[in-house]
Amino acid sequence: MGATIGIVIFPEVQLLDVAGPLDVLSGVDGIEVRLIGSTSEGVRPDGLANVTLAPDDILAQAEPDVLMVPGGDGIRFLLEDASALGRLAQIGAQARFVTSVCTGALVLGAAGLLRGYRASTHWRYLDLLRLVGAIPSDERVVRDRNRITSGGVTAGIDFGLALVAELQGADAAKARQLMMQYDPKPPFDAGDPRGAPPQIVAELSARTRDNYERRATLLRARMAG
Amino acid sequence: MGATIGIVIFPEVQLLDVAGPLDVLSGVDGIEVRLIGSTSEGVRPDGLANVTLAPDDILAQAEPDVLMVPGGDGIRFLLEDASALGRLAQIGAQARFVTSVCTGALVLGAAGLLRGYRASTHWRYLDLLRLVGAIPSDERVVRDRNRITSGGVTAGIDFGLALVAELQGADAAKARQLMMQYDPKPPFDAGDPRGAPPQIVAELSARTRDNYERRATLLRARMAG
Repeated sequence: MGATIGIVIFPEVQLLDVAGPLDVLSGVDGIEVRLIGSTSEGVRPDGLANVTLAPDDILAQAEPDVLMVPGGDGIRFLLEDASALGRLAQIGAQARFVTSVCTGALVLGAAGLLRGYRASTHWRYLDLLRLVGAIPSDERVVRDRNRITSGGVTAGIDFGLALVAELQGADAAKARQLMMQYDPKPPFDAGDPRGAPPQIVAELSARTRDNYERRATLLRARMAG
Repeated sequence: MGATIGIVIFPEVQLLDVAGPLDVLSGVDGIEVRLIGSTSEGVRPDGLANVTLAPDDILAQAEPDVLMVPGGDGIRFLLEDASALGRLAQIGAQARFVTSVCTGALVLGAAGLLRGYRASTHWRYLDLLRLVGAIPSDERVVRDRNRITSGGVTAGIDFGLALVAELQGADAAKARQLMMQYDPKPPFDAGDPRGAPPQIVAELSARTRDNYERRATLLRARMAG
């Protein structure tokens, strides 16, 4: 039994949020990954003029078995688009799994898909999940019933492998992990705010404050509306 | 002081070999990443009709501070192209660092750039490095003088962060690691042939035997030529 994974794409999506799961999942027998755009136009990831992602389907017509929303600066386009959020809510209601990488969870939340669910997202935006009625969890990959959400950017690889295990079994996931040689050795203990030097956490938090506030405002407006 | 990183792209490159380092490096102040093609035409990664990588420079004219060759099925196009290998040898002779992810090391080797150097590559092809006069090492990221080579696919993230530390200092690398939340939690101990179940290692080795033999033949022909 196979499954189609629909990854939602948009301008300024974070490349690795898409490329991690895409590379993991598209190498597995029985799994088909399709990119879903608001329109049929190709999109450029955040900051990259030399990469184009082209939709296989448009949001209005897509019916994937697994819905996946990645993150990135461009989530604002979805958070501001009531019609796209409405359509995501419909797709999510039909899907076998509703999933996200990084700040894609804020989009799922704005679509009303995380109300009452434990969920994860990029550490910097984790507490914003409360605004959409979710219960923030700082685990790397969080499953609550048929919701599977994950942490920031690189967590998409762990997420992708967890999804392979769910859909095609643990042996398929282990084979994929071996093929991708996913035996990570991060050069520093700095990938999580609990381990990173406090000064670096503080600097990054300050640098992302505007983005944090803008996202909070968009989510509050959505929930009030 | 900044640096330009030139990532060589070609048809059927492995997406994550490019996207991992690209996402890590392009988010760092002072680092510019440019994609280098044999021609100015865009290329599709292995197995993916919905992703296009567009060259910023062509091989004949590129002069990056850091040369990086990724891997993937399409390395055969480079291994068969004496003129491209000759140009890579020239670029490598001038570059501050000569680097690779995954089977990109076989291309560096075919260009004569790893003779007498310790080097790494995807575990399945590690012993092929002997054919090009390199000394195989199964560490995830291997530095020997100004050569920095890394293991299969996902090792590109560890490599990218190590390169940031080298070029812009440890604090810049830690900040990038935190932003990308690179605190990996692989779901299984299966990312390396030493940890993976022996049956899965044997199956993958069997499935990739033809590719292994073809690459060995290309490298032997190149070294004899």
